[in-house]
Amino acid sequence: MNLILLTNDDNIAEGTRVRLAGRRLRHVREVHRASLGDELAVGLLNGKIGTGRVMRFDEQTLEMDIRLDREPPAPPPLTLVLALPRPKVMRRALFSLTVMGVKHVILLNTARVEKSYWQTPFLEGAAIRRQLLLGLEQAKDTVLPEVVLRKRFKPFVEDELPGLIQGATPLLAHPGAGVSCPFGVQGRVVLAVGPEGGFVPYEVEKLSSLGFTPVSLGGRIMNVESALPALIGRIF
Amino acid sequence: MNLILLTNDDNIAEGTRVRLAGRRLRHVREVHRASLGDELAVGLLNGKIGTGRVMRFDEQTLEMDIRLDREPPAPPPLTLVLALPRPKVMRRALFSLTVMGVKHVILLNTARVEKSYWQTPFLEGAAIRRQLLLGLEQAKDTVLPEVVLRKRFKPFVEDELPGLIQGATPLLAHPGAGVSCPFGVQGRVVLAVGPEGGFVPYEVEKLSSLGFTPVSLGGRIMNVESALPALIGRIF
Repeated sequence: MNLILLTNDDNIAEGTRVRLAGRRLRHVREVHRASLGDELAVGLLNGKIGTGRVMRFDEQTLEMDIRLDREPPAPPPLTLVLALPRPKVMRRALFSLTVMGVKHVILLNTARVEKSYWQTPFLEGAAIRRQLLLGLEQAKDTVLPEVVLRKRFKPFVEDELPGLIQGATPLLAHPGAGVSCPFGVQGRVVLAVGPEGGFVPYEVEKLSSLGFTPVSLGGRIMNVESALPALIGRIF
Repeated sequence: MNLILLTNDDNIAEGTRVRLAGRRLRHVREVHRASLGDELAVGLLNGKIGTGRVMRFDEQTLEMDIRLDREPPAPPPLTLVLALPRPKVMRRALFSLTVMGVKHVILLNTARVEKSYWQTPFLEGAAIRRQLLLGLEQAKDTVLPEVVLRKRFKPFVEDELPGLIQGATPLLAHPGAGVSCPFGVQGRVVLAVGPEGGFVPYEVEKLSSLGFTPVSLGGRIMNVESALPALIGRIF
């Protein structure tokens, strides 16, 4: 927790003092080991970042006077279309993409996504949100990513994707591709990342026909938690 | 396990047939669900990669006829100097750097590395090796990274590091740096990555005085498992 994420519910004096309990209080006590008067990095969910000065601190309550005076880091202009990972990987993938600053995520069904993956409790709104908040706390960011689910590949690709890629560079991460992933792309990018085992040929063709360029990061097969930072670090 | 990693101990007929048991057998049964005659990706530890055809397969034993005819993917010309992560992160960091193809790793003590981290059983040779092998199996690589431990910052930086950076581009990943991490660097790179909380000013000065350029990936603070792929994906 490099930044303590606040919501308007934490406010006890309009925009100047917050009171925290629970997980954030425990973290400040056990990890920051903060004392009265210490300044900690704070940020308002979907708002500015700044500092909080510890004004009261006991077993039940942490109160801070806060000053929010800076914008959160600018996000990369990216829409991520990600084949739904298996549940074990899902949480780390959500954390990882949040840490990288991604703000628009579509979790998509593809041929190699097992049907059972859509049943996991990790896909419930609260469970997704929890991982996103942990990612924001790690990254010192405040802007919650928007995550939408698309359970049918073809309607999404035919009806929604053409609009999403207008004016953007559409890239398809594909380990077998002969083209190396470009560095430092200017402007908006729509990046499609397949499941373990990759997109099937039909999916690659379908995406290519829309204008997606299949690109690779070399001969290694990366796990999704590594592939996302590697691609995003390279593209932006 | 995208590639089944073989050692010379698995050979039952010189270089042409292998017999596996234990973890790899279970994986082929439960995840690949392979049958007689199937071809699986295999590779010889520190050697070539190719395919294995399943010739015998029962509860106790998997035998494959193997053909090793390709070189493993070329590694990035990188030496990674990594502040020793805390034990919980250590295993994932070793996995992650192996997936990215790093072959030379120095785990270094720095001011913000807690002394207790050096006591973890995850630092024992067998535990490190286990994570590296898992990373190779994920990446479809065979070349085991070399991981060395340096428990004293100053002697390492003064006595060893000047030799290591000769003819290389020395970069210091430092979230506060004003310079953006370069894309697609040509030639050998020595990359220093700090601990949670970063290098302390003395360490940054010491490394800068040797010629390291502090570079950043923007305003976000990344966990080490994300920072390593992000940096390596961008630099190579």
